[in-house]
Amino acid sequence: MEELLEQLLEECRPFTREGKVASYIPELAKSDPAGLGICVQCSDGRHYQAGDAEKRFTIQSVVKPMLLLLALMDNGEEYVRSRVGVEATGKPFDAINMTDQTLLSDHLNPMVNMGAIAMCSLIRGESYEHRYQRLLELVRTLAGDPDIALDEAVYQSERRTGSKNRALAYLLQTYGMLEDDVEQVLDCYFKCCSISVNSRDLARIGFTLANRGKPAQSDQRLFPGRYAHYVNAVLMTCGMYDGSGDFAVNVGVPAKSGVGGGIMAVVPTKMGIGIYSPALDQKGNSLAGIQVLTRLSQRLYLSIF
Amino acid sequence: MEELLEQLLEECRPFTREGKVASYIPELAKSDPAGLGICVQCSDGRHYQAGDAEKRFTIQSVVKPMLLLLALMDNGEEYVRSRVGVEATGKPFDAINMTDQTLLSDHLNPMVNMGAIAMCSLIRGESYEHRYQRLLELVRTLAGDPDIALDEAVYQSERRTGSKNRALAYLLQTYGMLEDDVEQVLDCYFKCCSISVNSRDLARIGFTLANRGKPAQSDQRLFPGRYAHYVNAVLMTCGMYDGSGDFAVNVGVPAKSGVGGGIMAVVPTKMGIGIYSPALDQKGNSLAGIQVLTRLSQRLYLSIF
Amino acid sequence: MEELLEQLLEECRPFTREGKVASYIPELAKSDPAGLGICVQCSDGRHYQAGDAEKRFTIQSVVKPMLLLLALMDNGEEYVRSRVGVEATGKPFDAINMTDQTLLSDHLNPMVNMGAIAMCSLIRGESYEHRYQRLLELVRTLAGDPDIALDEAVYQSERRTGSKNRALAYLLQTYGMLEDDVEQVLDCYFKCCSISVNSRDLARIGFTLANRGKPAQSDQRLFPGRYAHYVNAVLMTCGMYDGSGDFAVNVGVPAKSGVGGGIMAVVPTKMGIGIYSPALDQKGNSLAGIQVLTRLSQRLYLSIF
Amino acid sequence: MEELLEQLLEECRPFTREGKVASYIPELAKSDPAGLGICVQCSDGRHYQAGDAEKRFTIQSVVKPMLLLLALMDNGEEYVRSRVGVEATGKPFDAINMTDQTLLSDHLNPMVNMGAIAMCSLIRGESYEHRYQRLLELVRTLAGDPDIALDEAVYQSERRTGSKNRALAYLLQTYGMLEDDVEQVLDCYFKCCSISVNSRDLARIGFTLANRGKPAQSDQRLFPGRYAHYVNAVLMTCGMYDGSGDFAVNVGVPAKSGVGGGIMAVVPTKMGIGIYSPALDQKGNSLAGIQVLTRLSQRLYLSIF
Repeated sequence: MEELLEQLLEECRPFTREGKVASYIPELAKSDPAGLGICVQCSDGRHYQAGDAEKRFTIQSVVKPMLLLLALMDNGEEYVRSRVGVEATGKPFDAINMTDQTLLSDHLNPMVNMGAIAMCSLIRGESYEHRYQRLLELVRTLAGDPDIALDEAVYQSERRTGSKNRALAYLLQTYGMLEDDVEQVLDCYFKCCSISVNSRDLARIGFTLANRGKPAQSDQRLFPGRYAHYVNAVLMTCGMYDGSGDFAVNVGVPAKSGVGGGIMAVVPTKMGIGIYSPALDQKGNSLAGIQVLTRLSQRLYLSIF
Repeated sequence: MEELLEQLLEECRPFTREGKVASYIPELAKSDPAGLGICVQCSDGRHYQAGDAEKRFTIQSVVKPMLLLLALMDNGEEYVRSRVGVEATGKPFDAINMTDQTLLSDHLNPMVNMGAIAMCSLIRGESYEHRYQRLLELVRTLAGDPDIALDEAVYQSERRTGSKNRALAYLLQTYGMLEDDVEQVLDCYFKCCSISVNSRDLARIGFTLANRGKPAQSDQRLFPGRYAHYVNAVLMTCGMYDGSGDFAVNVGVPAKSGVGGGIMAVVPTKMGIGIYSPALDQKGNSLAGIQVLTRLSQRLYLSIF
Repeated sequence: MEELLEQLLEECRPFTREGKVASYIPELAKSDPAGLGICVQCSDGRHYQAGDAEKRFTIQSVVKPMLLLLALMDNGEEYVRSRVGVEATGKPFDAINMTDQTLLSDHLNPMVNMGAIAMCSLIRGESYEHRYQRLLELVRTLAGDPDIALDEAVYQSERRTGSKNRALAYLLQTYGMLEDDVEQVLDCYFKCCSISVNSRDLARIGFTLANRGKPAQSDQRLFPGRYAHYVNAVLMTCGMYDGSGDFAVNVGVPAKSGVGGGIMAVVPTKMGIGIYSPALDQKGNSLAGIQVLTRLSQRLYLSIF
Repeated sequence: MEELLEQLLEECRPFTREGKVASYIPELAKSDPAGLGICVQCSDGRHYQAGDAEKRFTIQSVVKPMLLLLALMDNGEEYVRSRVGVEATGKPFDAINMTDQTLLSDHLNPMVNMGAIAMCSLIRGESYEHRYQRLLELVRTLAGDPDIALDEAVYQSERRTGSKNRALAYLLQTYGMLEDDVEQVLDCYFKCCSISVNSRDLARIGFTLANRGKPAQSDQRLFPGRYAHYVNAVLMTCGMYDGSGDFAVNVGVPAKSGVGGGIMAVVPTKMGIGIYSPALDQKGNSLAGIQVLTRLSQRLYLSIF
């Protein structure tokens, strides 16, 4: 397996030169575009890795499924669904999915910024700092990695340059979908996005989603299996933004990308996969990362279709 | 199994009273809203059915995956993908998925009318009548039912009232995505939609998609397994129109609905399911049909997530 | 005056090289991009002209105000307003001014194709050929030029290449705003657009709109003054497509442009102006024509603001 | 004249019962829906008034033409035009006039909130408080009324409830069209909207726009005549939001409405008109106010078309 991973990284390394690292947040622009790593967590408890699998990077949008998961754990499926829709938007990550003059909860999707910001207001906590701490704790638990922490520089950078997210949050407030103080909600959101992880963390978290709540070789269910169905389904239809359709055809498993270069892929019942490669395609997905996953899916028959 | 199916139909029969039969085509308005039937084709070659499983109805949009399949068989994956995109539109079945002044092939989806009309121009044939005959032949073969035929009354009704489809086809032509005579292309499209099938046919066709090209208990591959991945992936993200996200969360298998009341569901490696219940919800999906599938998925753990 | 006109044409001639003749209709692509002419009809009955003022060209969208005028004369203000709105669309000439799934009469504007096509169905006649003949007669009467006739080559060219207009017409039909046979309605519309006029004709027609229905030095009112208000107001807000706002600021009089290179400007109570210059800007307006009108307005203080 | 005004108010008083006072700002909801007043300022220096002509109310969007005027005075026409477009949006007052993912200065209009907020950043001042003071001074000068002042309660109310305007401002910032601190810019904007005026003030301000910069019977030009053309043209195409087209047809003069119930109308060379009637139609325009202006325009032949 590790040999296969090494080989795939070699094959796909040239693609890192075709993408560009995210630049809208100054701190992200410092990433090394040549970075490339992968980790696969299998159901037998073993994990395999290659390349920059232990290189840390900010989780960015890959935190969205965890925000959704915590919202589900805190409120149940029915309430979360009533507040944030699940239809694919067919649009970029920061899209304003509205026409005319009405924004409805059904226009939101937890994997697109506006829906993810709404998700922050659904998770519980005495303060927005507390909500962030609870999310961080969940990420640590799912990854089995207590060292996961905030990347303070990225967080400060996000906070300073987050005009679009501020606009999205105020739109939510305008249409009655966000009652709390916008700056506090966004502060929580920016922190969640700035959590620093590595490919191994993403592989392990992905595995709990693949295994309906249970970490590898554990009998402890961290969350109800039904929530894994919910999260994985949303990942399948909208996890790769407006590249989700091509990803479903070419790779065929639920996944979530982030502009930090991470991709977390979920192969139901079988494995969790973490990828790191910060050179992005035009839709904001890791360009070489998608290539690696496409090949891995073909070689190991991972498509769930 | 048949007992379970009977029981589910009983449970869900009240939902038939909450929907409305399609009325935009006069001929469809004549359907009996109380109709409800199901057929399940399993991999051991057996099939189970209940209710109006042999009642014939027009296939309508459930023909779209077969149009896509035939286009793939005639042209290969790469060419078809270059002509019609695969992103979810998040919009109703007859949506004009464009903003501003540009319509690109990436805005199309084979499961939405505009993309399906484009698909008619991709399948081969000496004439559009010939193309329709080839599609009909494929449907008969996949269903193993040589009696499948055109519902002439619905076809004539569609043809007379198809202003929106004409508008969509002329838009395709405007943007260079349809070169042939619009009326001929639409005639083929209207005929394809007016093919009369029953739930058993849909179950058998669905099974070939679940079984990567092979009918139950057969070694003959009717189409490459790779095309089943393609079609099933597109069904998952966009097969139930702007209800696809909820369907993925609640049922968790690829499926396609039609305004004739049919739903074809694909449970990869396991089964094909055909549903008939013409009372539709506001998104144009069979209302009781979705309820039956939701319960069936929960009882038999069918979700692929 | 004629000296001023000659001088303005000299000043603006270089702008003819910055535009492009319309190419979406093959026949229009044959126009000479260097063509430039102007005619001014004054209230004292005299007219002044310079350059290619007698060069004939097809009227194209400049016929839209006459379609609106005839619809008003045939049906009265209230009925016409109930069928076609008057709000500026802020969009290009062939825009689909709809979002989501509803197209309402208030989304139409008589100066944008969809509204103009609807207008053809409002004017009276035993057949669509008869309606066209009545419109042609009105144009001849307003221009005082019985030689105005159809440019058969352009008409045939429009007819062959009118996919977008066909799409727009079928959309109108879909939403219940066009009941008649689409091809017949469009045939009338294409003929109306293919009427061949010269700058002098446009100046005289514009004068009747400026003079609330009366030709220069005539006591015969060809249409009620109230309809001139209606038409001129719509020209002001939407006559130059999505360049109407800049035109209002820079020239300040009601006007209508056509892709044939014509502009008809209306200086209320004072004059009618006809321009010919087929090199167009990106919005489809005569580029040098707008420059000539801007300068003429400044020199003669024509702005109504 | 005063008799005519009294008579028109009587005729139109019933319309006050068909509208609703603005409620999105709590403080505005306290207005008396039966309020109705008018003042007409003529070029001979006399003014005529009837009803609640001296009742004070907040200027709201009627301040937008003054923001545009001050921006023009501070920066000249070319610069202002390069920063904020002038095309009609055909959309409501708080519309997000963008599709897809790009917002350009050409999508803005100074009479729609987003453009007006941008305008605040164009006027000069050492601070945003200073900018507001300069705008207030201009309003006082144009109205010849040194008593014009801020309505503190409305200002505080606007500030607390301005989520939509915050969203619009952050969108401007996202697309590089607003560099300063959003809260400071909005504070200036909210103050400008909360200036308290009466119908007589609006009539006098309107007159200076009608008279190309000169107050009645004065030789002192308060601003260049060219800027009056600019402002009046923008009012004509977009001053009454998505009711501008109907207003142009039915009244035929440049005008600006505000949700406080005010309308300022400009009859070029002839008069300025101020209206107060806080019961609004669905587009946010004073319902009875438009009726009064329609009748006044018909009786006195005010249409500039």
